[in-house]
Amino acid sequence: MSVASQMLDSYPKDLGGIDKGKLLACIEACYECAQACTACADACLGEDMAAELTTCIRTNLDCADVCETTGRVLSRRTGYDADLTRAVLQACAAACRACGDDCRSHAEMHEHCKVCAEACGRCEQACHDLIASLG
Amino acid sequence: MSVASQMLDSYPKDLGGIDKGKLLACIEACYECAQACTACADACLGEDMAAELTTCIRTNLDCADVCETTGRVLSRRTGYDADLTRAVLQACAAACRACGDDCRSHAEMHEHCKVCAEACGRCEQACHDLIASLG
Amino acid sequence: MSVASQMLDSYPKDLGGIDKGKLLACIEACYECAQACTACADACLGEDMAAELTTCIRTNLDCADVCETTGRVLSRRTGYDADLTRAVLQACAAACRACGDDCRSHAEMHEHCKVCAEACGRCEQACHDLIASLG
Amino acid sequence: MSVASQMLDSYPKDLGGIDKGKLLACIEACYECAQACTACADACLGEDMAAELTTCIRTNLDCADVCETTGRVLSRRTGYDADLTRAVLQACAAACRACGDDCRSHAEMHEHCKVCAEACGRCEQACHDLIASLG
Repeated sequence: MSVASQMLDSYPKDLGGIDKGKLLACIEACYECAQACTACADACLGEDMAAELTTCIRTNLDCADVCETTGRVLSRRTGYDADLTRAVLQACAAACRACGDDCRSHAEMHEHCKVCAEACGRCEQACHDLIASLG
Repeated sequence: MSVASQMLDSYPKDLGGIDKGKLLACIEACYECAQACTACADACLGEDMAAELTTCIRTNLDCADVCETTGRVLSRRTGYDADLTRAVLQACAAACRACGDDCRSHAEMHEHCKVCAEACGRCEQACHDLIASLG
Repeated sequence: MSVASQMLDSYPKDLGGIDKGKLLACIEACYECAQACTACADACLGEDMAAELTTCIRTNLDCADVCETTGRVLSRRTGYDADLTRAVLQACAAACRACGDDCRSHAEMHEHCKVCAEACGRCEQACHDLIASLG
Repeated sequence: MSVASQMLDSYPKDLGGIDKGKLLACIEACYECAQACTACADACLGEDMAAELTTCIRTNLDCADVCETTGRVLSRRTGYDADLTRAVLQACAAACRACGDDCRSHAEMHEHCKVCAEACGRCEQACHDLIASLG
């Protein structure tokens, strides 16, 4: 059982009706994607053709920041606010889509963009799944 | 002239049609609000009645994270993406509204909540102004 | 194989002599600990005795921030700077020690503090192991 | 009076003996430098010679993260821990020195690197001043 799962199980009050499985999946996808995007921005900087990857680097940096913030917001259950949660998830899905699209477009040339595009795709899907469950 | 303003002026390419004054105002409001919310969460922890301020603390923490991420996304101009910018600004306006509302509700008891509510209000307005200018 | 591991393997240049296994272990421990500390601060807020946990909450928030920054710095390999890496790892070990000590002191009452103390302990050890390998 | 200054003045307990003027100067320098470094990384990406600035970009990203975390840690006064504060300030001074040195080395070619180097210099100095005052 992951640490994030153990933390969720030990929250002392009830979770306010949110789908626990989808919440956990989204928290884990956000942190995974945040790390992947940080590493992908740097790996792009390390490529000989870095100058052609500037849009990818920028999108990676945005996606890392948005995923990290989303992972933090979702990890908090006290004083749960569905409207704020939804707005943050929508921004996260938008960031993951933009970054995933860009990375996918040169995934055949750069293994790090391929891995990152997959992480973005999983995180975007996890955000949509959680939004749908919010009702 | 602020450092943020000097940085914006020295960006080597054009700004892609975004309103420079509204952009700068929003960047500065985001960083100011992020700091205020971080300090307000902590000042609430320092109150004797901290146990009654848990929702305020949580909302402060969310707002600090969202404002910081928004300030970063707006500070980047390379590969500008209006859709992502709009989604992030909407999440930021939502976070500032939630935090401002909560802080305002006990602003008379706690000076730090009063100052924080004002910073949230300015940041929410700056987000809406920038969204409106995106067209 | 974890995403962080795949990202490290796909970095396009060599890793500058750093121990890859210890680096990966430390990156993963930092992100895991950052999430645990964010969740633990919030779980403490959710306890009926939140007012007695304010130092724990504050230490959790610091540790989450420091671990997240350390995870990011370590995920970047371009232009590697051993001195900066060492200074950041020392701050991270100090944050993990402070947070782990506080959480451990009431781990018997709060399962989330027990889980968090263990995550802090692993991350502190991973930082020390990586520092030792830097030579 | 800045918002950070108002927040510090409204902290409900005493500040634990820390020099308030130096603390405030350091908080403000950290947030200013974090924004400047985020913008400078992006401005470097926007340069035609971005491929020659990859080390500067990476150092900017590290410095932005470390300054942001330091600004947050310093903004919290509850459960003050001088050892952790010192370790974080030392990491911040190291990040500002590395980034300032790199930016300064091509400040004549890039106005954004000149402005950023100055912000890094002020923040490094503010960290050292605060460390010295901790005793």
